[in-house]
Amino acid sequence: MALEEFQAAPRVIQTIDALRLFVTQQRQLGKRLGLVPTMGALHAGHLSLVKKSNEECDVTIVTIFVNPTQFAPHEDLDKYPRTLTQDLKLLAELHVSAVFVPSVEQIYPEDFSTFVDPPSVALPMEGQSRPDHFRGVATVVLKLFNLAQADVAYFGQKDYQQCLVIQRMVKDLGLPIAIEICPIVREPDGLAMSSRNRYLSSEERTQALAISRAIEGARQMVDAGEVDCSRLQCMMRSVMEQAGITRIEYACVAHPETLSQLDAIEDAAIALIAAHVGKTRLIDNCVLK
Amino acid sequence: MALEEFQAAPRVIQTIDALRLFVTQQRQLGKRLGLVPTMGALHAGHLSLVKKSNEECDVTIVTIFVNPTQFAPHEDLDKYPRTLTQDLKLLAELHVSAVFVPSVEQIYPEDFSTFVDPPSVALPMEGQSRPDHFRGVATVVLKLFNLAQADVAYFGQKDYQQCLVIQRMVKDLGLPIAIEICPIVREPDGLAMSSRNRYLSSEERTQALAISRAIEGARQMVDAGEVDCSRLQCMMRSVMEQAGITRIEYACVAHPETLSQLDAIEDAAIALIAAHVGKTRLIDNCVLK
Repeated sequence: MALEEFQAAPRVIQTIDALRLFVTQQRQLGKRLGLVPTMGALHAGHLSLVKKSNEECDVTIVTIFVNPTQFAPHEDLDKYPRTLTQDLKLLAELHVSAVFVPSVEQIYPEDFSTFVDPPSVALPMEGQSRPDHFRGVATVVLKLFNLAQADVAYFGQKDYQQCLVIQRMVKDLGLPIAIEICPIVREPDGLAMSSRNRYLSSEERTQALAISRAIEGARQMVDAGEVDCSRLQCMMRSVMEQAGITRIEYACVAHPETLSQLDAIEDAAIALIAAHVGKTRLIDNCVLK
Repeated sequence: MALEEFQAAPRVIQTIDALRLFVTQQRQLGKRLGLVPTMGALHAGHLSLVKKSNEECDVTIVTIFVNPTQFAPHEDLDKYPRTLTQDLKLLAELHVSAVFVPSVEQIYPEDFSTFVDPPSVALPMEGQSRPDHFRGVATVVLKLFNLAQADVAYFGQKDYQQCLVIQRMVKDLGLPIAIEICPIVREPDGLAMSSRNRYLSSEERTQALAISRAIEGARQMVDAGEVDCSRLQCMMRSVMEQAGITRIEYACVAHPETLSQLDAIEDAAIALIAAHVGKTRLIDNCVLK
């Protein structure tokens, strides 16, 4: 990988020292900095975050780092898609100022041992399925925030619980950064954009559509007046099972701030799904009210 | 407590919002900010940190917050000395710019749940005696760093392991702040300054002197060529026991960066003691080499 080819636009930064220098210069110039943390394998969802940052900030820093501490040993760290050449092309088209592409050793040197114990909203759902996931997420996001010293950071609603964990961490620890959550970007047929969609075979791709259909079905039922969450959950499971999805981790209706599961919809609710299609784990969600 | 009496100098700040406003103003003016985090009950050790910050920075912010999360349930949180009026007088004499005196609710609102899991250097010694102590310390220090956005923070070497934990946390998490460790300030007879010295009766005050005598004895033995750490440890225990100190938590010689215990002194070593004098737990240390 010849990173040097891309030094013109965007500027590719590979070390913490170089990032600090860039950030210090930009801050001295009085620039408003936007941060878009990613694991690469960029798709239209990521690019929507970059566009939003470009609109609102003088300088956009995108980070591309496949963070090992948020993967469990049995998960897909090794096969997670890495498409840096293509990613840099896409970011160049959007005139991104800088892309931070650190090595694992830059972020986690050998003697690294400080972690963030994430807020309690990390415990249900993804926290049940992936017990140390948010500890890894919160730690790397905090470190990226500290290094980039941005005014605002952009995250996608596709990872809804992750957004809550980060918002909560920022509030609890008094971090001097604003968090903006951007809407889920979907394929024309409804499938939520995800770097992991690349794993899907053609047959699985069709099967995966049942996830967004289930989410959309819940939204329509609530629009039509349904308030009973067990009926909504049954419907979501049924839609997925009929499509042949058998490994459903959760398909639930919860309070959008606390993620506590609801019996009946009152003032606010969100539907969230995690399910396996073949060997690929996918998530989706939709605010119902 | 009429805080208003002291609004002139130093400025007393009681809320996070007011602190952020002050910090933003100072940063916009291009001021270099120094931070001195304390639990109040200020003594000459604290004041040496303030003086150092005054020398090196344009603006010194002192925080006074008795942090509940670093005390175990059986410890002295409730009786920890609180001497705010006197503290503010001392800080006024040093022309401190601002004193942040938050309530517990400001730092830990009801739904607070994000913590720092401190680096591995937190595990021995104090970590054995006070298992959740450094989790509380790291969390509150990180929050104060985020709120004050200082260029440099000052800590006293008396809390040697705490200094290591904070330095390590800053490095691991990429915090944009420099840490300066200032020497232990001692009473004329050698006792290390501590807010907890106020707890000592006259008799205990005399007994407590054996701690600094033990530490100083180790230093002298090493200066005279001693390299066997078990002999140093025996001597330190013996000095304290002869003075009637029976509850010694540790009296050891360790590597000054890792705190791993040493058998023999090679390139670098520190002696550390924690012991109870009456009901008062005291600590002390000295770099031997």
